[in-house]
Amino acid sequence: MILETVFSPADVKKLPPEQLKILAAEIRSELINVTAANGGHLASNLGAVELTIALHRVFDCPEDRIIFDVSHQSYVHKMLTGRRQFMHTLRKYGGLSGFQKRSESKADPFGSGHSSTSISAAAGFAAADKIAGRKNITVAVIGDGALTGGMAYEALNNCALYDNMVIILNDNGMSISPNVGATSKLLSRIRVSKKYFGFKRFVYKAFMAVPGIGKGLVNMAVGFKNWAKRHLVHENLFEQMGMHYFGPLDGHNISAMEDVLREAREDGKCSVVHVCTKKGNGYAPSEKNPAFFHGVSGFDRETGTVKEGGKSYSSVFGDTLTRLAYMDKRICAVTAAMEYGTGLAPFAKAFPERFFDVGIAEEHAMTFSAGLAAGGMKPVFAVYSTFSQRAYDQLIHDVALQNLPVVIALDRAGIVGSDGPTHHGMFDMAYLNSIPNVTVWSPYTETELKVCLKRALDLDSPSVVRYPRGNVPEGKSVSDIDYAVTDFGQSEFIYTVLITTGSETAEAYRACEIAHANGTNVRLIRLIRVKPLPDITHLIKNARVIVTAEEGMKKGGLGESIAAMCAQKQLRARVTVCGADDFLPHGDTDVLRSIAGIDSTSLAQKLCE
Amino acid sequence: MILETVFSPADVKKLPPEQLKILAAEIRSELINVTAANGGHLASNLGAVELTIALHRVFDCPEDRIIFDVSHQSYVHKMLTGRRQFMHTLRKYGGLSGFQKRSESKADPFGSGHSSTSISAAAGFAAADKIAGRKNITVAVIGDGALTGGMAYEALNNCALYDNMVIILNDNGMSISPNVGATSKLLSRIRVSKKYFGFKRFVYKAFMAVPGIGKGLVNMAVGFKNWAKRHLVHENLFEQMGMHYFGPLDGHNISAMEDVLREAREDGKCSVVHVCTKKGNGYAPSEKNPAFFHGVSGFDRETGTVKEGGKSYSSVFGDTLTRLAYMDKRICAVTAAMEYGTGLAPFAKAFPERFFDVGIAEEHAMTFSAGLAAGGMKPVFAVYSTFSQRAYDQLIHDVALQNLPVVIALDRAGIVGSDGPTHHGMFDMAYLNSIPNVTVWSPYTETELKVCLKRALDLDSPSVVRYPRGNVPEGKSVSDIDYAVTDFGQSEFIYTVLITTGSETAEAYRACEIAHANGTNVRLIRLIRVKPLPDITHLIKNARVIVTAEEGMKKGGLGESIAAMCAQKQLRARVTVCGADDFLPHGDTDVLRSIAGIDSTSLAQKLCE
Repeated sequence: MILETVFSPADVKKLPPEQLKILAAEIRSELINVTAANGGHLASNLGAVELTIALHRVFDCPEDRIIFDVSHQSYVHKMLTGRRQFMHTLRKYGGLSGFQKRSESKADPFGSGHSSTSISAAAGFAAADKIAGRKNITVAVIGDGALTGGMAYEALNNCALYDNMVIILNDNGMSISPNVGATSKLLSRIRVSKKYFGFKRFVYKAFMAVPGIGKGLVNMAVGFKNWAKRHLVHENLFEQMGMHYFGPLDGHNISAMEDVLREAREDGKCSVVHVCTKKGNGYAPSEKNPAFFHGVSGFDRETGTVKEGGKSYSSVFGDTLTRLAYMDKRICAVTAAMEYGTGLAPFAKAFPERFFDVGIAEEHAMTFSAGLAAGGMKPVFAVYSTFSQRAYDQLIHDVALQNLPVVIALDRAGIVGSDGPTHHGMFDMAYLNSIPNVTVWSPYTETELKVCLKRALDLDSPSVVRYPRGNVPEGKSVSDIDYAVTDFGQSEFIYTVLITTGSETAEAYRACEIAHANGTNVRLIRLIRVKPLPDITHLIKNARVIVTAEEGMKKGGLGESIAAMCAQKQLRARVTVCGADDFLPHGDTDVLRSIAGIDSTSLAQKLCE
Repeated sequence: MILETVFSPADVKKLPPEQLKILAAEIRSELINVTAANGGHLASNLGAVELTIALHRVFDCPEDRIIFDVSHQSYVHKMLTGRRQFMHTLRKYGGLSGFQKRSESKADPFGSGHSSTSISAAAGFAAADKIAGRKNITVAVIGDGALTGGMAYEALNNCALYDNMVIILNDNGMSISPNVGATSKLLSRIRVSKKYFGFKRFVYKAFMAVPGIGKGLVNMAVGFKNWAKRHLVHENLFEQMGMHYFGPLDGHNISAMEDVLREAREDGKCSVVHVCTKKGNGYAPSEKNPAFFHGVSGFDRETGTVKEGGKSYSSVFGDTLTRLAYMDKRICAVTAAMEYGTGLAPFAKAFPERFFDVGIAEEHAMTFSAGLAAGGMKPVFAVYSTFSQRAYDQLIHDVALQNLPVVIALDRAGIVGSDGPTHHGMFDMAYLNSIPNVTVWSPYTETELKVCLKRALDLDSPSVVRYPRGNVPEGKSVSDIDYAVTDFGQSEFIYTVLITTGSETAEAYRACEIAHANGTNVRLIRLIRVKPLPDITHLIKNARVIVTAEEGMKKGGLGESIAAMCAQKQLRARVTVCGADDFLPHGDTDVLRSIAGIDSTSLAQKLCE
């Protein structure tokens, strides 16, 4: 097995070209194995196998830095940079991250998880190298999907300066869902004009073979080519922005890519190398359905099937919104390349004219929603909690300040598990807290999610409905939608209160059971509306111990709000706020809850103290 | 006076073309008067006089919606839409806003203040109109500077769909400082290819004059033209993105613009009209120094001079950083088009190779800074508090999660006065509160600012130094840089504590004097480090009344942190948190403080309660 002989990029360089195809096949097989077992991003890694091999044959990692955008496609990179023997730990607690991570390896110069950051980071390295007089090259590998994110464009606008930088445009014609918008069309037009580049490489190879005079002839031929190109072929965006453009290339042809990457490396300008890859390449089920295999939670290798799960919060949201949209023609749905992840597929099918997938562009999505609302519509922007951080300013400046009735459906609020710190939705309650005019609901049951969504749509002001990743528990409606109270023990003898919300409910419930079994009577208050805080003074005024628990940051979150309320109302209870104090790693949700001290055992201890 | 006869856009339409030049001159004169008296954005409005007149002659405002990007250039629009008689109240409390504002007039369909939002908002309106079957046109007027903001690109990527939308590119070759980056070069190349458009207009006008056969001939000629253009002239970015491009036009020639705007209005595609204007046009001091006259606080009309102010926080920051950079070659400065506003001009002059103006691109600026830090530099990103909101996710995901030593110099933290709600820096303490690894300082005196900046640069983790708009008070260093304590009355008889920070210090001090004069002994604790909160338990443990005061949001801010800390430590004091509960309007800082209840009188009352 060739892969067993590869411990570092130096080993990749040593391999004779004819062995590379075999290496690629071995890598693919391991990729399928590890994602079938551990879940993860399969399709994008299958697409990047040859590209990653070519990169490591041309560049000297870690001295040359390779930064993958989003970096869910960095598994092959991990295998080739000394981490192959740990691939079975991928996405497990204490194991390898599913993304690049600085603390994991010197081969990971910059971590990520959110989209469109790689060019900015690479420009930072390139600028630092220039100041320090270092000769390293920094490579940013960015997908065509990530290129719809505005900050990639902001970065492109600034990197013509850096001749020590190479941008690889890994173009598979998709983001997570098939790509949308003008950038996508623009790239497909570049792809069509393929002939030009083939000619250039042909000329180059042919003439360079002639000893002595090769270079001069090449320059002449290239000079003619450039003239012809300027006049006959459109310059593309990258060239117009002052960079050198190479491509498009077959992203599964290693030797072709090696040639061009060497050229780009030595080029006296910031260069863009455009490679066309096939997402899911080399595994039939994934080639057939790359969107499904974008991110999976484990599957059967032979059949490519996953076992059916229960009903997710996302699907309840999507189905409910679709039903409501039949009754109210003003309801629109907006997503930033997450039609499937957010459960909006049924809506998109039923109401294509009111469904807007704007690409990986959360900032635009939020202000576009504000425009829809100002134009009399009822837009619902469905977005993962962690990605909503991208639209924080737009939420304040365009939505809240103008008090426009935009509904934000905040999916993946709370701990998400194996995707780790870049994907946990830990900040939303804290950042929403200070924004005026915004109402925030945090439902737990299916019925509550439906009721909250309906109430949000009925409001004439901005609102957020936040709910976690995973399956929704069954559960009845509660009479008062603002909060629900369960007493463990006789009400008149309860001096201990646990306050919680959303995804922390099950854990909190268990904590109360444990505490009660250990002789402490507890009142559990579950907040369904978390902003503005419902008036629960009458429920806690006799408490001596108040514990709050949330899947969110301790500082500035729900618990501190409650604690601050207690101090302002001079309630005499001792308040203990439980929540995350730091970024949480990746791993099993239960393990992460223990780390944050919001597991049932830790909470029960606090209740009994 | 013609302007006196103009009460609405209908009146602008009625004017004979020969009177328009006079109208423009009258508007210019009033613009200079009002900004000389009230301060405001002069240069951009002088540049947009003819454009705004042409827009109102072609489009039917408010049925057609005109959305100005940033909208500091909407003064002329205000004059022509029934608000001329209130122009003397511009930027005063209760008067006209310096920006578009939905609550001010139906002619303002969408408010702004931050950059690059107009195309997103316009696309929202255009989509809403299509769903509702309305025939309105939505116009977005965006400057070339705002086009460096990524969300403008995200929006462009999505608006080829909207044939009911016109984008005006108001190109004056500058953002606030002269423009940077590739977009700027790209536009200047488009400008150079002027000939083409002149020819097209000539053909159109000539042939359309022939009755009956005009249209056919025009189509033939245009057909030829398009062929020639495809093959001889580069398509520009806008055309490549699927929009129709018209231009570039002389933005001070009303009739030329009217012709083209009519064509664009009827065009069956989303169209981009590129007009070239001169920032500051028609007022010599402003033409000479448009960057200075971008935003002014009042000046002498005859000479164009302003009276010298004191020493600003921004200049202390800029000078200090420049001095430190002589000693430490790793220090870099990053700005998003605010070289002058943030006081970085001396740095840019002394260390051009370590100074990075990335354009209006806060997201990129933050992650670029993270890249610089990962590359071994000590980047300082100087940005206004309100604009830093744009980089909230990048601060979490790229800087804090990776614990990179980026220093954020947060200028204009707190109330800014006449620029109003889009510009007040009210959210930073709240949003920073929950982000792990970030240290936050909030100095008040000149010495403190210098010391905090130095300490921030010495840290090996992310930090923020926040300071307000305006002049720095003189003041000595304090021994303990984390906080300073002043007792009003004998220490052992103090049961009332006021806790404050930064720009609220002077007001808090006065409040203590008032309270003390009224018989209440008070301890004033001024926090210089606000995160992590210094341990001040020993200073407040005997307090019965604790009042907190900050120029920031009440919810989730410093005060609630302190209140939560008191509840968790079971201190017995009644805590009263003072801060803004809602968005604050524009106006005099003192007035705004009273509205927020953080003026000295209100605070003194709380202390004596």
